[in-house]
Amino acid sequence: MSEAHAAPRVFRNALVVTQDATRRVVRADVRVEGGRFTHVGPRAPGEGAEVVDASGVALVPGFVNLHTHVAMHPLRGIADDRELAGFLETLFAVDAHRTEADVEAGARAGIAEMLLGGTTSFLDLYYFQDAVARAVEALGARGFLGWAVLDPEMTTQQGRPLDNAAGFIARWRDHSRVVPLVAPQGVYVCGADSWLGARDLAVREKTLVHYHLSETRREVSEHEAKTGRRPADWLGEIGFLGPGQVAAHAVWLTGGEITRLAQAGVAVAHCASSNLKLASGGVAPIVELRAAGAAVGLGTDSVASNNSLSMLREMHLAGLVQKNHHWDATVLPAQQLLDLATIEGARALGRADAIGSIEVGKQADFSLVRLDHPTLQPARPEVLVSHLAYSAAEEAIESVYVDGTCVVDHRRLVRGDWEAIRRGLESAADTLWSARPK
Amino acid sequence: MSEAHAAPRVFRNALVVTQDATRRVVRADVRVEGGRFTHVGPRAPGEGAEVVDASGVALVPGFVNLHTHVAMHPLRGIADDRELAGFLETLFAVDAHRTEADVEAGARAGIAEMLLGGTTSFLDLYYFQDAVARAVEALGARGFLGWAVLDPEMTTQQGRPLDNAAGFIARWRDHSRVVPLVAPQGVYVCGADSWLGARDLAVREKTLVHYHLSETRREVSEHEAKTGRRPADWLGEIGFLGPGQVAAHAVWLTGGEITRLAQAGVAVAHCASSNLKLASGGVAPIVELRAAGAAVGLGTDSVASNNSLSMLREMHLAGLVQKNHHWDATVLPAQQLLDLATIEGARALGRADAIGSIEVGKQADFSLVRLDHPTLQPARPEVLVSHLAYSAAEEAIESVYVDGTCVVDHRRLVRGDWEAIRRGLESAADTLWSARPK
Repeated sequence: MSEAHAAPRVFRNALVVTQDATRRVVRADVRVEGGRFTHVGPRAPGEGAEVVDASGVALVPGFVNLHTHVAMHPLRGIADDRELAGFLETLFAVDAHRTEADVEAGARAGIAEMLLGGTTSFLDLYYFQDAVARAVEALGARGFLGWAVLDPEMTTQQGRPLDNAAGFIARWRDHSRVVPLVAPQGVYVCGADSWLGARDLAVREKTLVHYHLSETRREVSEHEAKTGRRPADWLGEIGFLGPGQVAAHAVWLTGGEITRLAQAGVAVAHCASSNLKLASGGVAPIVELRAAGAAVGLGTDSVASNNSLSMLREMHLAGLVQKNHHWDATVLPAQQLLDLATIEGARALGRADAIGSIEVGKQADFSLVRLDHPTLQPARPEVLVSHLAYSAAEEAIESVYVDGTCVVDHRRLVRGDWEAIRRGLESAADTLWSARPK
Repeated sequence: MSEAHAAPRVFRNALVVTQDATRRVVRADVRVEGGRFTHVGPRAPGEGAEVVDASGVALVPGFVNLHTHVAMHPLRGIADDRELAGFLETLFAVDAHRTEADVEAGARAGIAEMLLGGTTSFLDLYYFQDAVARAVEALGARGFLGWAVLDPEMTTQQGRPLDNAAGFIARWRDHSRVVPLVAPQGVYVCGADSWLGARDLAVREKTLVHYHLSETRREVSEHEAKTGRRPADWLGEIGFLGPGQVAAHAVWLTGGEITRLAQAGVAVAHCASSNLKLASGGVAPIVELRAAGAAVGLGTDSVASNNSLSMLREMHLAGLVQKNHHWDATVLPAQQLLDLATIEGARALGRADAIGSIEVGKQADFSLVRLDHPTLQPARPEVLVSHLAYSAAEEAIESVYVDGTCVVDHRRLVRGDWEAIRRGLESAADTLWSARPK
């Protein structure tokens, strides 16, 4: 299903953070037409276009949030500062009470927050994904939505999860900004049949696969006790691993598993804040995964375990933690952090040809960032990437476009009413919070 | 020097994050008069006051940024992702070219950014502090300003640093929002005479002392090689340590040094972002310092090494790093993080009787935080503190008051013109960046 595209627009004299192969930051005109960039360079033709003076802003590719559960938005703060067992007990208790309506309410609030933060694409893992897909459609984001697959006896889903995933994929395959996919939850609730069933479905339907992998020591040790293999090794040996997969977390990997994942073409969603907040205890081997050739992007995880959906914060935190962990301030410099949040996230999704940078022919997913904002001073072009990675606040993101259509205009949602979204979220929260275990 | 106070104001029906001894979050009226809170509770008298409907906001104590160098603002991004030696080489080269005028320009921009982020008090270490004090006066912040003391042969200051510090203290001792103090830089540029001279000056003038301590392994090992003692032990043995001191960083401490600092009444400014970004390699023993009884607050350090002055980011990052380091998600919960950013910072400054909480009799330093902002949803009172610690964005901070006077009103500076401040900063940056070593 395609949408009518916004009228052509020309952004005159912008500071463009291209994120192209040369990572140029250049003063240029940018023309957007038919949902794509049609000109990036001097003197774009203005004919038939709305011409915007962009001399006071930077054009920055939309961020790619590579792992979240956006429907969990009503649960922000519900299980903070708890050991993982207590955290999960609370979340599972509440989860059993969820309805498609409150999933949609949560998704709307979460997507709104992401758009306001310059995130144009996100990779999600949950169920009731039709409700999330409707929120994506309504608000104008780009959603890569994975239907959660668990062994049938492990889930509260009605029907067989793999069939549900197949149905979801069939219903949404032709939408322009909803990309359906299958998402096995993790080795603690998925046996080999679920993993291989998910893989078969993905190969048959040409979709991505998204899953949790080696997030905690407990997950790894319990799986090793049960199967004699660590999770990534086991997934390789059963014939599951392959390209078109995005593994979230990937904290507790051996050197052999890092090589195995990279060689299989598996990408990784690094969730630094979530890992730290749940006290995973380790630091994900991001430098090593990249050195092995894996595509790595950044994920916020859900607001129950971060508790922010800010990709600006996530760049700052991920970079600082890696530097300290390696005793080396040169590790993951600002440019690489912005890469993780944009073009590398796109590569992880197999969409480096379509999103993640500002280049002619790509989908026009981007933000206008105010160069006069306090958190971007001094606004010298040579440190603009540093400011994005280390200091810029969401407030500096003036407007956001997806597919060339304006979805945030001067800090206001264009395609949704925040006050209505907020009331919907509060109402969902009122019900769900009452289901907390005492 | 005292200022005329704003007219009395009553904030009706606010959600008040008191940070009082019981850490109550209550719906209440708050009356501000003569620069102080005169009522916190039901039904404040409205007579003679401007009455504000505050039902849509939280009243939150102003943040205390316990370590920064605000005048370094023109240098944000100038030496990112560099090993400490290269970082310092760049900063020292630029430092030699600084003028009082560019220090003031930098301070104005930095103070503006802090006020917009809800920081009402800050502890600063630099020279040319008269220029910083003028910026504090002008913009309406509360500045605890330490004149940097180095051994005379180690500094570019004109005159003897201890005399300069004494002069600065004498010039500013009677100002209402400028608190002058003495600030020995660190063991790498201060011998015993400078340390003890600073201590004598502080005792004589009844001021605080602020200094860097055990930030890097190199600092510790070089001092140990030179003196046979680690820095904190050495400072104890020469008779320097005592109450009324705030040590910044304090990363590389032994258990014995932690006990020594706490028993001496020394407070600590924890600079989590700065330590990580410069790849200190360790994690400051914040839990241990607090257990030993030390007052600990949060400092952003300067924008050359963070690169943000956001106390909201700093709470999130400091909490997450401590949790992961201890393999324990219950460490430094949200309430304690907000404590570090408010009342504990005030305690570190010896001002817990005057600032850091919303209580009758205290100086009225506080923010109005929008409860309808996306990053504070769901806006349930029981998780408001969690949202402040883990997810709230600066944009949610609608207005800020210092001494009962509005200094930020609906995201705009009241007592300064941001565009003029920004131009001043850019001009200072143009000059300073040209002094970078090639």
